[in-house]
Amino acid sequence: MTDSRPALGVGMVGYAFMGRVHSQAWRAVGAFFDLPVAPVMAVLSGRSAERTAAAAAQLGWAAVETDWKELIKREDVHIVDICTPGDSHAEIAIAALEAGKHVLCEKPLANTVEEAEAMVAVAERAAARGVRSMVAFNYRRVPAVALARQMVAEGRIGEIRHVRAQYLQDWITDPEFPLVWRLQKDKAGSGALGDIASHIVDTAQFITGQLITGVSGLTETFVKRRPLAEESAGLSAAGGGGATGEVTVDDAALFTARMSGGAVASFEATRFATGRKNAMRIEVNGSLGSIAFDFESMNELWFYDQNLQAEEAGFRRIYVTESGHPYAGAWWPPGHGLGYEHTFTHEVKDFLEAVGNGTDPAPSFADGLRVQRVLAAVERSAADDSRWTTVDG
Amino acid sequence: MTDSRPALGVGMVGYAFMGRVHSQAWRAVGAFFDLPVAPVMAVLSGRSAERTAAAAAQLGWAAVETDWKELIKREDVHIVDICTPGDSHAEIAIAALEAGKHVLCEKPLANTVEEAEAMVAVAERAAARGVRSMVAFNYRRVPAVALARQMVAEGRIGEIRHVRAQYLQDWITDPEFPLVWRLQKDKAGSGALGDIASHIVDTAQFITGQLITGVSGLTETFVKRRPLAEESAGLSAAGGGGATGEVTVDDAALFTARMSGGAVASFEATRFATGRKNAMRIEVNGSLGSIAFDFESMNELWFYDQNLQAEEAGFRRIYVTESGHPYAGAWWPPGHGLGYEHTFTHEVKDFLEAVGNGTDPAPSFADGLRVQRVLAAVERSAADDSRWTTVDG
Amino acid sequence: MTDSRPALGVGMVGYAFMGRVHSQAWRAVGAFFDLPVAPVMAVLSGRSAERTAAAAAQLGWAAVETDWKELIKREDVHIVDICTPGDSHAEIAIAALEAGKHVLCEKPLANTVEEAEAMVAVAERAAARGVRSMVAFNYRRVPAVALARQMVAEGRIGEIRHVRAQYLQDWITDPEFPLVWRLQKDKAGSGALGDIASHIVDTAQFITGQLITGVSGLTETFVKRRPLAEESAGLSAAGGGGATGEVTVDDAALFTARMSGGAVASFEATRFATGRKNAMRIEVNGSLGSIAFDFESMNELWFYDQNLQAEEAGFRRIYVTESGHPYAGAWWPPGHGLGYEHTFTHEVKDFLEAVGNGTDPAPSFADGLRVQRVLAAVERSAADDSRWTTVDG
Amino acid sequence: MTDSRPALGVGMVGYAFMGRVHSQAWRAVGAFFDLPVAPVMAVLSGRSAERTAAAAAQLGWAAVETDWKELIKREDVHIVDICTPGDSHAEIAIAALEAGKHVLCEKPLANTVEEAEAMVAVAERAAARGVRSMVAFNYRRVPAVALARQMVAEGRIGEIRHVRAQYLQDWITDPEFPLVWRLQKDKAGSGALGDIASHIVDTAQFITGQLITGVSGLTETFVKRRPLAEESAGLSAAGGGGATGEVTVDDAALFTARMSGGAVASFEATRFATGRKNAMRIEVNGSLGSIAFDFESMNELWFYDQNLQAEEAGFRRIYVTESGHPYAGAWWPPGHGLGYEHTFTHEVKDFLEAVGNGTDPAPSFADGLRVQRVLAAVERSAADDSRWTTVDG
Repeated sequence: MTDSRPALGVGMVGYAFMGRVHSQAWRAVGAFFDLPVAPVMAVLSGRSAERTAAAAAQLGWAAVETDWKELIKREDVHIVDICTPGDSHAEIAIAALEAGKHVLCEKPLANTVEEAEAMVAVAERAAARGVRSMVAFNYRRVPAVALARQMVAEGRIGEIRHVRAQYLQDWITDPEFPLVWRLQKDKAGSGALGDIASHIVDTAQFITGQLITGVSGLTETFVKRRPLAEESAGLSAAGGGGATGEVTVDDAALFTARMSGGAVASFEATRFATGRKNAMRIEVNGSLGSIAFDFESMNELWFYDQNLQAEEAGFRRIYVTESGHPYAGAWWPPGHGLGYEHTFTHEVKDFLEAVGNGTDPAPSFADGLRVQRVLAAVERSAADDSRWTTVDG
Repeated sequence: MTDSRPALGVGMVGYAFMGRVHSQAWRAVGAFFDLPVAPVMAVLSGRSAERTAAAAAQLGWAAVETDWKELIKREDVHIVDICTPGDSHAEIAIAALEAGKHVLCEKPLANTVEEAEAMVAVAERAAARGVRSMVAFNYRRVPAVALARQMVAEGRIGEIRHVRAQYLQDWITDPEFPLVWRLQKDKAGSGALGDIASHIVDTAQFITGQLITGVSGLTETFVKRRPLAEESAGLSAAGGGGATGEVTVDDAALFTARMSGGAVASFEATRFATGRKNAMRIEVNGSLGSIAFDFESMNELWFYDQNLQAEEAGFRRIYVTESGHPYAGAWWPPGHGLGYEHTFTHEVKDFLEAVGNGTDPAPSFADGLRVQRVLAAVERSAADDSRWTTVDG
Repeated sequence: MTDSRPALGVGMVGYAFMGRVHSQAWRAVGAFFDLPVAPVMAVLSGRSAERTAAAAAQLGWAAVETDWKELIKREDVHIVDICTPGDSHAEIAIAALEAGKHVLCEKPLANTVEEAEAMVAVAERAAARGVRSMVAFNYRRVPAVALARQMVAEGRIGEIRHVRAQYLQDWITDPEFPLVWRLQKDKAGSGALGDIASHIVDTAQFITGQLITGVSGLTETFVKRRPLAEESAGLSAAGGGGATGEVTVDDAALFTARMSGGAVASFEATRFATGRKNAMRIEVNGSLGSIAFDFESMNELWFYDQNLQAEEAGFRRIYVTESGHPYAGAWWPPGHGLGYEHTFTHEVKDFLEAVGNGTDPAPSFADGLRVQRVLAAVERSAADDSRWTTVDG
Repeated sequence: MTDSRPALGVGMVGYAFMGRVHSQAWRAVGAFFDLPVAPVMAVLSGRSAERTAAAAAQLGWAAVETDWKELIKREDVHIVDICTPGDSHAEIAIAALEAGKHVLCEKPLANTVEEAEAMVAVAERAAARGVRSMVAFNYRRVPAVALARQMVAEGRIGEIRHVRAQYLQDWITDPEFPLVWRLQKDKAGSGALGDIASHIVDTAQFITGQLITGVSGLTETFVKRRPLAEESAGLSAAGGGGATGEVTVDDAALFTARMSGGAVASFEATRFATGRKNAMRIEVNGSLGSIAFDFESMNELWFYDQNLQAEEAGFRRIYVTESGHPYAGAWWPPGHGLGYEHTFTHEVKDFLEAVGNGTDPAPSFADGLRVQRVLAAVERSAADDSRWTTVDG
């Protein structure tokens, strides 16, 4: 049971929703994938010593730090996994990369384009020294999404005409839901836009292989003030006392777009789609076929093959659990589906392979910046009468 | 078998796709609904004497005319049903109304706002004399859509935040599909915009009871030139020789919108959504619930009731075939669904009831004009860098 | 508008649920299909002069009779359409055939095997004289079911291993629902078995081209006594006073079966499947693929093609509205679905074509007898400890 | 990070498909559930030293044994987890229980009723000494299935009339698929019957709270001979040379049943349902509503509430990911679904809670025996012309 592979210590910053799911990924990845390196769950950092220790015990981290700067300094940490809100990404990531640590950073890459640009600059210098970085757009690692990318790349749907992407949630429809950090611009950067529109922007660009070149946007905040939060975790929270505060981010963001290959696109992200829990959806229509996906049925990819004669054609439900499907073969027999957390296990697997093989993982910080620029263009357009706005870069 | 109800002669202009389905409606309506008047399928008009005679024989019309002006003059014609392309609507409708005939006019009401305004003016004067007019937005008469309207009006989904409407077809994805009249601006006015976006605009306003106040639009023509058509019927046609002509209408139209009650909305109409045949879809999210509809499953309305506790809530498939559902009770027992043509039978039923009862049917020409103004605003916005454009009126 | 085709007068017996839907079929068929003969809605017969006259006026029949024997005698009646309960089928059909009238008879063919055998004997003698007969298993005429038959016949799913058929309704789950004729053995013959299991037996044999050779059955009556009915129509009724009567038919029937080509099969018919309104479902699994159908989504056929590589395979939703699909091309453009009544229009069309072309229509009375024998075997097995019972014939 | 809870060493026997998924469960359970004891992945046993060592390294087991008898003897093993084929369950489980080890045993409990009876006898004696045992029917731990049980127990669907259960797979439709152990009676006991019908029998009894009292069965082996297998893992294998062997188990098993509370039921298990990968489905119809489940959409429970008025009723898709749903609250926010492996994590969690709290876990070996007796009755009935056969016990 000796292991000849290099062991790489992981230091994770943050242990809330994202920290919990990343932990599960680090814990499981080695049992299912043959990796060139062996990850070790070395250190967890959080501000509260007591809570961090409890989280580390539960999640399986060997040591704790209360200052992420100390975590970065540790010799037993080779990889820094950033699971904090967006306002701290730039500082931590830049420090880690400069200290020679590989970095996996949660999305959105940063809260502003400026921060993201600084991160990309550092990441590119680091890459030249063999230090790797990746932004955690986990939905690329849904087997059905990866299969969609593969089919598009193989030309199965032909020339792309339409992209139709939605990310629908409903966790703040209740006006009494409190003012958690995700509703505060200084911490979260933006609302539905940065949190979930970022995912569909990345996924749309990933699947089509096209970039968004321009947008016309509209944002809305339906509930302007909310009770101040006492405590929050994940996407739930309890309101405190009677005091309220201003919601400083968007509740919903809608935009039309054009893509570099000629497709027109429609995007919508909202936290007010009552009854839609995590409906991250994308449909792509091409000259030879279409693909459609909804994360609420994450093991399914729907494919329409225009090459079949009309009488036999129809959207077909590919149950993405076959051994030849991306990622799926490492798990269970056909028909035994995966869940949300597996997307992170796949992400960590791809990251570790890149680190072990000395290649740059994707999506890169530059990819994250590109998403950021799209979001910024949406905000600018929304603030300017929805006028068409070219995406920078 | 004597019938004490007043008999009203119907004169129909045009016998292509819309004429065929209207004929079926006139033929069937009396067998299923108790009407205050008895419609008689009196006269069919078309330009070719031979073809019109053949159509009349097949569709069950008692007489034919080759000039719609003659049809209007006939004393046995009390109702004029206009099933021609949009470029002739204004002339025929105005003449008929001025001749004291009730008018049912296919959508879009007209090809331009100006024509539509003229029609509304004449219709309002006619109404003062007891002459009725209605524009044929048949999707309002899908039982599931009528139920959606009813549930929204009863407050079942609360304050509306989102409307998400799409009308997706794919009948011209093939670049060899010929240049039929629906692809020519002079005849059709516009493309997907007037033909199918008009339906979702009307349906969205109908279900929500809100008007669209402003839009930001984008249109696209993917295939710029097409073979000249030899002959066409319905939505199919055969291309002729090698000559091509310019496509002068939009293939797809996308727009975001704001509605009078505070909702934000997203609309998309396209003839290039490969695999989507007639996917007229609308979802409305409110503070107390949501409703969702797709015409490809036209007997179903999906409803999410936020008042249920979270552990029991979920989108529920109401199979809209119960005796208490709008229109459905007149037909078959629960579970025995209706088809496309029934929406027209319901339309004709509502029209005849209004005529017989001396009330104004809905949607009125003014409603049709309102839709036209939204479409015009979309076109203006699309031509002006998607800039936000207020809907007139 | 003269019509050179021979006109054939139709006389219909009964005007309840089946009579209404047959009327719609006779009324519409000529407008959509090119027929070799022209049907005329000549005579309707029913016991009550007043009610029959009202029905004839509403449904479009030219004359009425209060005795079906008179209807059969009439010279203007060439076709007799039997829409009465099963206990009168044999007498009417035999009399009509012997009088030289073509007969379309509602299912089940008869209430007993003996009656059905007598009908077949008469029908075969009549056929020798050019008099046609057909039993009305309308579900064969759902375009999706006809397409399923076609695909199986073309070998698209290979050697058949499994048939899985269900007919689920819920209209008598309420124990206060009254004792209508469909719940009385003397009128209906049996319950769910004859009424709806008959449909899935016929459909299974039709699609597979195999006969059911043996069965093991089980039947159940959940509610043994019910209020006496005052009046009933279709599948709804109102209970009267406080008196109750015995339910003498099965509420549910389940059976396993073997088919002539080696398939094993499972059948279930029930009126107690709460929430299932008219779920007539069938799935067939073969060595090369599968097909699946549910009447609650009647315009869809699901097809799994095993010949595709596993990574691209999946059940595909064929939206059976293409011009090349059985029956569908006569109606509307792709994506514009049909409803329940169209199955009857297709049935009448096929019947008229056979009559006009001098061929025997299917399903024949012999086919109806075969279904009857399967049902009888199920009853015998159910009465004998579910012992395996060979189907006679 | 000290842990005051008692540590319990787990020794697992077998490391194929079931061993891999059980390992993932032992590995993850502590990170998501607050347990009264702390499981330690102590020992893995398998016959090949080399392969077992490799598996242990990959799956995270601290030590290995090549003889399960040695594993049972070890002092660091408190729990024995049996993941071998059914022919060895009895011997291992009895030895372990007699050695005072808690036992989690994969299903089916044994290959014969006799073995299962012996196991129950030993388990009951062991329970008296505080030694716990459980049979691993993991589908009880699908959150949607647990919710279904809860809703039925709360009376939400009333008196149960129908159970409709299917377990459809297609992994051996190809006649060239080799003769793996699952197709050999001496190793597997039976085919689809023991392997997958056992799951739907347990699930049906679990959800309804009723026992199956009698059955009428039918079994079939479509492919009688198959190539001898060289090597196999999970549900896939490669055939060797040209030699073939006899398939000694059923490919498919169908049976009707009656349940102790008056419901009638239909069961079908097959490995020949082309296109159905792991369709473990169950629908239950009651006087007040219905529930329906399909493992291929494992995060969904469909519920029909008859108490709603007909016009608003419909099957509703409960997305079983809310914090108040069974098991689900321990994982991610609403809308972030789980996968196949989580059912095992939940199973291990319930087992550890019972062990830690000194209670007997469910399903017990007696529950497993009850399932075995149903399967035996199906086999006896199938061998006796499908005659009705009472389930023993």
